Amino acid sequence: MSNERNGQSTRLSDTPFDDTSHLKQQRAIRTRGIILNAAAKAFATDGFPQVTVKDIADGAEMTKGAVYFHFPNKEALAVAVLEVFYGRMQDAINGALEHRDPSSTATFVAVLRRLARAFQEDVFIHAGARLQIERPYIKAELPVPYVGTLEVLTDLLDKCRKAGSLPEDTKPEAMARALGSAVFGAQHISWVLNNREDVVERVDEIIEAFVPLR
Amino acid sequence: MSNERNGQSTRLSDTPFDDTSHLKQQRAIRTRGIILNAAAKAFATDGFPQVTVKDIADGAEMTKGAVYFHFPNKEALAVAVLEVFYGRMQDAINGALEHRDPSSTATFVAVLRRLARAFQEDVFIHAGARLQIERPYIKAELPVPYVGTLEVLTDLLDKCRKAGSLPEDTKPEAMARALGSAVFGAQHISWVLNNREDVVERVDEIIEAFVPLR
Repeated sequence: MSNERNGQSTRLSDTPFDDTSHLKQQRAIRTRGIILNAAAKAFATDGFPQVTVKDIADGAEMTKGAVYFHFPNKEALAVAVLEVFYGRMQDAINGALEHRDPSSTATFVAVLRRLARAFQEDVFIHAGARLQIERPYIKAELPVPYVGTLEVLTDLLDKCRKAGSLPEDTKPEAMARALGSAVFGAQHISWVLNNREDVVERVDEIIEAFVPLR
Repeated sequence: MSNERNGQSTRLSDTPFDDTSHLKQQRAIRTRGIILNAAAKAFATDGFPQVTVKDIADGAEMTKGAVYFHFPNKEALAVAVLEVFYGRMQDAINGALEHRDPSSTATFVAVLRRLARAFQEDVFIHAGARLQIERPYIKAELPVPYVGTLEVLTDLLDKCRKAGSLPEDTKPEAMARALGSAVFGAQHISWVLNNREDVVERVDEIIEAFVPLR
C-alpha cells in the first residue's frame, strides 16, 4: 500500500493527468473488489433469490449508488462472482500442478485435494457453488459449469495412463467424469449436512476408495 | 375405476352412512394424489421459489380453494412431495433387492441402476431432487437428506464384504459415501447439462469404474 502511494506521488509530478486517472482506476479496482467480496459473502450465505443489491451495499459499507456505479444489477454481480469462482478453481488446479509431474497419479490426487480445500475455505467458491445450483433463478448468460474442470481432470488422467501410472484399460474421460461427480456430490452433501466441515475428509475418502495409487 | 364404483354401490345398500364417508375418503385420496402430481411437476419444472399455489391448482385443474382444502400452504405441498420422493427412492431400492442375494455385488449394482432409472423417469424424484437443493427456501421442517440412502448402501456393502464378494479391507461406510456422492453428483450434473438424458449411462460409468465386480 505505502509502496503504491510512493510510486504514485513520484509519477504525479511527471504526468499529473495520467496519474490521476491511474489513481482513479486503482481505486475503482479496489472498490470493485470490495463489492465483489461482499456479494460473494451474501450469495454464499443467503442465496441469489434472497439477496438484494442493498444487502451487498450494506456488506461493502457503501451506498447502493456506489454498487450500481460498478454493476448494473444483481445478475451482473452474480456473473462477476462466478467469473472469480472459475478463476479460483483454475488457481487451485494450477497451484497443485506447479512443480509436479502431470503424468503422476500423485499430481492428480493433489489437484483433487487442493479443490477440496478451496471448497472448504474460499468464500468465492462457496458462492460459486451455490450460484451454480441456483442458475435457474439468475436471468443472465452464465458459463457452462463442470465441463472445464472435467476436461482438466480428463487430460491429467490421460497423461497418467500414457505414462503407465494408471492401468492401460483406464478410460480417462469416464474416470474423470465419475471422480468429478463424486467430488462435486461430496462437497454438496458436506455443505448440506455439515456446513462443509468434512469436505476435505470426504474427498480423501473418495481418493482412497477410487484412485489407484502407485 | 369401474370395479371401485361397483364395490361401493354394493356396500351402499348395506351401510349407507359408512359408505358415503368411505366414498368421500376415496375421493379425497384421489384428489390429494392429483394435487401432489401437479405440485411435483411444478416444483420439478420451475422450482419452489417460483411456483405458486395457483400454478399447482391450474396444473391439477382445480380451484385454489380445493388445493387449500388439502394443504394449508406451499410448504406443506413441498413436504408432501418430499415424502413421496423418499417413498419412491425406497421403492426403487426395494424393487432392486427383491429376489436378489443382498450379499452379492450384483445386487448392489442393481440398486444403483434402479435409482438411476428413477432419477431419469420419475417426476416425484425430479421434484424431490430439486426441492432438496432448494431447502434453504422452504420454511418447514424437512427430513434430513442423503443419510437414509447412504445407510442402505453401507448395509449392502457390509453384507458383500462379510460374504467375501468384496475385498476384506473394503470400508463399507466410506465406500457407500463415495459411491453415493458420485451418483448424487452425476444425476445433478446430468440434470444441468443434459436434462437427465444421460443419467443411466453416467451411473453405469461409475459402476464400471468403481465397483469391483465378481
